[in-house]
Amino acid sequence: MINKNVLSRFNQKNKTSFANRGMGLENDINLANEYYKINDIAYIYKKPTPIKLVNVDYKLGKIKEAYFQTPSTTDYNGIYNGKYVDFEAKETNSKTSFSLSNIHKHQIDHLVNVLNKGAISFIIVRFNKLNETYFLSTDDLERFIKNNKRKSIPIDFFRSYGTMIKIKYSPRIDYIEVIDKLYFGGNKS
Amino acid sequence: MINKNVLSRFNQKNKTSFANRGMGLENDINLANEYYKINDIAYIYKKPTPIKLVNVDYKLGKIKEAYFQTPSTTDYNGIYNGKYVDFEAKETNSKTSFSLSNIHKHQIDHLVNVLNKGAISFIIVRFNKLNETYFLSTDDLERFIKNNKRKSIPIDFFRSYGTMIKIKYSPRIDYIEVIDKLYFGGNKS
Repeated sequence: MINKNVLSRFNQKNKTSFANRGMGLENDINLANEYYKINDIAYIYKKPTPIKLVNVDYKLGKIKEAYFQTPSTTDYNGIYNGKYVDFEAKETNSKTSFSLSNIHKHQIDHLVNVLNKGAISFIIVRFNKLNETYFLSTDDLERFIKNNKRKSIPIDFFRSYGTMIKIKYSPRIDYIEVIDKLYFGGNKS
Repeated sequence: MINKNVLSRFNQKNKTSFANRGMGLENDINLANEYYKINDIAYIYKKPTPIKLVNVDYKLGKIKEAYFQTPSTTDYNGIYNGKYVDFEAKETNSKTSFSLSNIHKHQIDHLVNVLNKGAISFIIVRFNKLNETYFLSTDDLERFIKNNKRKSIPIDFFRSYGTMIKIKYSPRIDYIEVIDKLYFGGNKS
């Protein structure tokens, strides 16, 4: 019943929220999504983590026993400029590479599937200790996986093929700016 | 902490799953989405219900106390034929009308917001006692709300402006067929 990957993810989140006071990547993206929504730029949401209910008091609306489940898709999706947008966001403490074990195989499959249907599909990876955050398209992610046997993507691959997302004032992580540049010829619409 | 709408929804779901053995609308749509996914037609998923965690044993990955929250968006979204698809699905036991109290105001706002960004945006409503299931575009839903003071949509409005989704063998609820007809000139792609 207990999924170790999901579990460690939750442990990490719990720690992060105390240590960094919610200034982690997930929080930055949530704030960006809120900014996009308020300014009618894009409607992109984080999906809730799926939970397996075991014991629920429906009269009180109280969940007494439940377990985290592995998400079947990515964490974020929505619409921007008529396009379906879908991505996964991850942080790493490594200074040299991003381990692919951070992303489930079925999440990568999902990113590829929606890409093939016309989505803007990508991952956002933050190297915490380098203060560098990258946007990497699923095209490039797929190419790396096909052409490499190693299970982690070196930082140089992100530097060469990804797009660095610079920290701004508001929103801190303006990934739509990258989408504009890569998919709409740099023109905001 | 306890939201009555969410609560009644969960009570209802709980009852339905025993009474109809999971043959309700939600189950039909989940099976259709599975069918679309397996056949590489569309990637549309139900979002998990958001849950507010109060007491979690992270070592065991066990949630000991939590509460259902009101969803901030609709239940279903994804991609079909390059288009972002977003909808809400509801059942009613009324034979005459569908009460708008079944859909939160912010869910309707969300349907309108994504429509304005180019989404295929709609609701699916099943009249359980009539065995009739309708696809109603957000355009038509919005028009009804603007032009009517009443808080429920009469069945005749669905019959006039909606599209009936006939029950098929597989998938039982083929709402993509309706999308093909209404948005892609009837051509499967």
